[in-house]
Amino acid sequence: MTLALIAGAGALPAALVAALPQRPFIAAMEGFAPEGLTPDLTFRIERLYPFFNALHAAGVTRVAFAGAVRRPRLDPALFEPSTAQIVPRLMHTLAQGDDATLREVIALFEEEGLQVTGAAEIAPSLVPPEGLYAGQLTPRDQQDATRAAAIAEALGRVDAGQGCVVAQGICLAAETIAGTDAMLAQVAALPDMLRPNPQAGRGLLYKAPKPLQDRRIDLPALGPATVRAAARAGLGGIAWEAGGVLTLDLPAMQEAAADHGLFLWSRASGRAG
Amino acid sequence: MTLALIAGAGALPAALVAALPQRPFIAAMEGFAPEGLTPDLTFRIERLYPFFNALHAAGVTRVAFAGAVRRPRLDPALFEPSTAQIVPRLMHTLAQGDDATLREVIALFEEEGLQVTGAAEIAPSLVPPEGLYAGQLTPRDQQDATRAAAIAEALGRVDAGQGCVVAQGICLAAETIAGTDAMLAQVAALPDMLRPNPQAGRGLLYKAPKPLQDRRIDLPALGPATVRAAARAGLGGIAWEAGGVLTLDLPAMQEAAADHGLFLWSRASGRAG
Repeated sequence: MTLALIAGAGALPAALVAALPQRPFIAAMEGFAPEGLTPDLTFRIERLYPFFNALHAAGVTRVAFAGAVRRPRLDPALFEPSTAQIVPRLMHTLAQGDDATLREVIALFEEEGLQVTGAAEIAPSLVPPEGLYAGQLTPRDQQDATRAAAIAEALGRVDAGQGCVVAQGICLAAETIAGTDAMLAQVAALPDMLRPNPQAGRGLLYKAPKPLQDRRIDLPALGPATVRAAARAGLGGIAWEAGGVLTLDLPAMQEAAADHGLFLWSRASGRAG
Repeated sequence: MTLALIAGAGALPAALVAALPQRPFIAAMEGFAPEGLTPDLTFRIERLYPFFNALHAAGVTRVAFAGAVRRPRLDPALFEPSTAQIVPRLMHTLAQGDDATLREVIALFEEEGLQVTGAAEIAPSLVPPEGLYAGQLTPRDQQDATRAAAIAEALGRVDAGQGCVVAQGICLAAETIAGTDAMLAQVAALPDMLRPNPQAGRGLLYKAPKPLQDRRIDLPALGPATVRAAARAGLGGIAWEAGGVLTLDLPAMQEAAADHGLFLWSRASGRAG
């Protein structure tokens, strides 16, 4: 059962590899190099079937996805013939949004006999269970987390994003394509008059998977850099849906949270599964 | 029937005044000066009942709200005694979000015998009916507007914001406390790799009232500056919920749209009233 990691950009792929009992085969999409890993293979969507053949040749039977991949701009000149035949199918699902596209990506791998497994499943140590991992919660923080979870669910249900920032009930930012770091930078740049009085509650970053996404792919991830960015944004902490979010180096996150006086809360979602 | 305009910041109050048959009494909240208008009276939330008395003394029987007002930070030292008595009530609704707060503000005025009327009702010329006011729509634009309307409805239903930016089905930004201009600046600053190929559709700004808001207050507004900001963000146009959005100087918006090759589309919502 050889595992291949289909690695996107950022620090998550290396964290996942470090959490596995042995190094997997590592494939990376051209243009989305993982940090701190040397891929065994680089592929392009336009040549997906040759890529599948290379995975089979390497004895791969299972794959896991980790790391950021944005919709690549496809180059019609590069299409290999069998991949070109699935273009209409891909275009159809792309038009339906990310959730549908990622489900289709999973289906394409599975049709090739490659079992798709979730990062959370192969590296459960990266998914902290419910609990408070740093700091203290005020009742205001708990109310803000409840409100933020409702906003994130609404955003996720329309396949728009996986998080938001809430302070004293006010939504200071909603995550979309630009991602968490960009959202926190927006919050850091908010004019003082738009922010509720920080004396009454600093607010929080909340992250959760989208309600309709396949959890084997594209789980939200948090790391020490997120903690520092949340501190720069003036927030009181980070809350996330327990079981639905990957953490990169939780001890380092806890250390950064302690340095900046932030809480870290893996919060029960109140939703089934 | 003397009308008072409770004016917030920005250009909308002056546009509303210009659209009325006669100049109303103009009141402005301290710190939120309307552009191009000289208020007859400036008030603070901490002294709401003295403000009501001043409106009565001026013969005011009807009020309309227009312009941006953010949640003010209240100064306990400034509270007049009768206003202080409603603080618990205000705090309770503030905790429930903007929709509840604005309904409570309306209720406070109505309890004083002041009829609250919508800007759209007293100046219907500011609310363009369904129609295409500039440019041309592609099928892609129509799909993006459908998707954007669904996202804006989801965001609005959780009382988070009144708009979003969508390109080729992808949500590039969602509006929250920082407002439309900040959202368009974020989109203008998006790294090229995060944007879908502009050849296949430039995307649009979409604006709509929140589904649960009282439409007598805080309708979204668009103006020529919005058109120019949408152009800077690389968008193909602006769509909005017909009947639910105020326009400041539609002819100037049309001129700016023509200059930049943008469409302006007042779109039937498909929702009842």
